[in-house]
Amino acid sequence: MNENILGIVAGVLTSVSMIPQLVKVIKEKNVEDISLVMLLILISGLSLWVWYGVMKNELPIILSNSFAVLVNLSLLIYYLKFNKKT
Amino acid sequence: MNENILGIVAGVLTSVSMIPQLVKVIKEKNVEDISLVMLLILISGLSLWVWYGVMKNELPIILSNSFAVLVNLSLLIYYLKFNKKT
Repeated sequence: MNENILGIVAGVLTSVSMIPQLVKVIKEKNVEDISLVMLLILISGLSLWVWYGVMKNELPIILSNSFAVLVNLSLLIYYLKFNKKT
Repeated sequence: MNENILGIVAGVLTSVSMIPQLVKVIKEKNVEDISLVMLLILISGLSLWVWYGVMKNELPIILSNSFAVLVNLSLLIYYLKFNKKT
């Protein structure tokens, strides 16, 4: 199989699997189960993956990790907005 | 920065961020918040990323996605073991 097609299919699958958590948080406005530290670690890691993709010039890596950064930044914004402990 | 080091740092960060969910499920034996369909989609996507890494011969991609497959297969096993609906 062509590597780029494989990467894009892989990226679509892992991206799709992230959506429900975001939808759930938006719907229920409940961020209790989210750990701020882990979210920050995840966003840092995903951003480094984007950087890695740019250095290696691999579009599937860049696209899927950029999407994941966006989803998790949205979770972060919701966390900061709805977290009752802060 | 060396691409492999960048990839390994990125992989460690995204891998670390997965651990708490697994620990939480193991500790609380509560899999209510896990969607079986999404877990299967995620495991399929991650497996394709491993395949992509093998084709491109990129160790950081292979290692971090293999780890993610293991974590999510463990979640799947716990899901099948503790889900009360089945």
